[in-house]
Amino acid sequence: MRGFLIIGNEAFTEPFNLSDLPGAGRIDILCRCVSQALFLSHSIRKGVEVYLMLLGEPDPPKAIRIRSDELRRMSPDERNIAGHIRKAVGYKLTKDWTETNSGIHASKKTLKELLTELSTSWEIYYLREDGKDLHEQVSKIKNPLFIIGDHIGVKRAEEDIILEFTKDILSVSRLSLMAEQCVAIVNYELDRAGII
Amino acid sequence: MRGFLIIGNEAFTEPFNLSDLPGAGRIDILCRCVSQALFLSHSIRKGVEVYLMLLGEPDPPKAIRIRSDELRRMSPDERNIAGHIRKAVGYKLTKDWTETNSGIHASKKTLKELLTELSTSWEIYYLREDGKDLHEQVSKIKNPLFIIGDHIGVKRAEEDIILEFTKDILSVSRLSLMAEQCVAIVNYELDRAGII
Repeated sequence: MRGFLIIGNEAFTEPFNLSDLPGAGRIDILCRCVSQALFLSHSIRKGVEVYLMLLGEPDPPKAIRIRSDELRRMSPDERNIAGHIRKAVGYKLTKDWTETNSGIHASKKTLKELLTELSTSWEIYYLREDGKDLHEQVSKIKNPLFIIGDHIGVKRAEEDIILEFTKDILSVSRLSLMAEQCVAIVNYELDRAGII
Repeated sequence: MRGFLIIGNEAFTEPFNLSDLPGAGRIDILCRCVSQALFLSHSIRKGVEVYLMLLGEPDPPKAIRIRSDELRRMSPDERNIAGHIRKAVGYKLTKDWTETNSGIHASKKTLKELLTELSTSWEIYYLREDGKDLHEQVSKIKNPLFIIGDHIGVKRAEEDIILEFTKDILSVSRLSLMAEQCVAIVNYELDRAGII
């Protein structure tokens, strides 16, 4: 199992225009992270979970969970994935997970509530540019969930919460990469290390 | 300098619907490859060139060249990049490069004509699943241009041409990755090895 949690600092929490994903609080970034996390060429990885934390207007927070093993009818292009997110945020959500599509659930959990739940089953790693080199640490990693910020990164308020739950802070590059590039590289390093 | 050439086996060679990029011969894949090749968080890499070989109907072949150092007004989302490709294929093109946007040129070059031109200034590597491990070979690489197939891979006719120009066949993973994941990993390995 491997997991990813992407922080969408301004990601819209109501249905948005599928023809302007950057204008919907950079939903495009979240879509590319989902795509990079889940998809191989012509197939979907087994045992991957992606969580999206949507913190934008008008109704934050909303949390989305995508489980690769239950997923149906998703393709790797931004617009298709955005359609699933759009549908999920359109539901009347509660603190519990509501299924919005096969393999996709959404809720009104806060970041702290979400991490409290995730910390019971995952080792949580926070990806930040100044962290320890993932490549050197990867052999020690088991059952990891990686937290990654979007174009804004992670703000202080959220970072304080994240650090309460974090086993370690890791980095994939000295360059400031896009979130979805971090996801692709994490998968690559875990694959090379034989970590399922 | 580093370069990428993506083979779009069915990529449309006339203007297409921006709201259905997969239906335009999987232009979405080409867009994600461009995005992964060129963009960092909030900036564009220096010295990267991306070539797209569009082989779909109705007017193949069309070749597009994107030079990061001259590029203006591109953002990393699929729809924005697709808009640039759409504009480029709408021009009346010749065998010479026609500028269709700052940093973007298009032509009617065949794959063989394009590779003949590229081979004068690049070391050409072909990415294929059964190739040598890029991670182990990367220290030997200088001034590379990587050829990557889309969801269909590279067909026999194009592969025969590619192999005439190829210095080596490399692989990034034993898994069958999406083209844009290969691009992200190539950048990662070149970055780690300090290859500019």
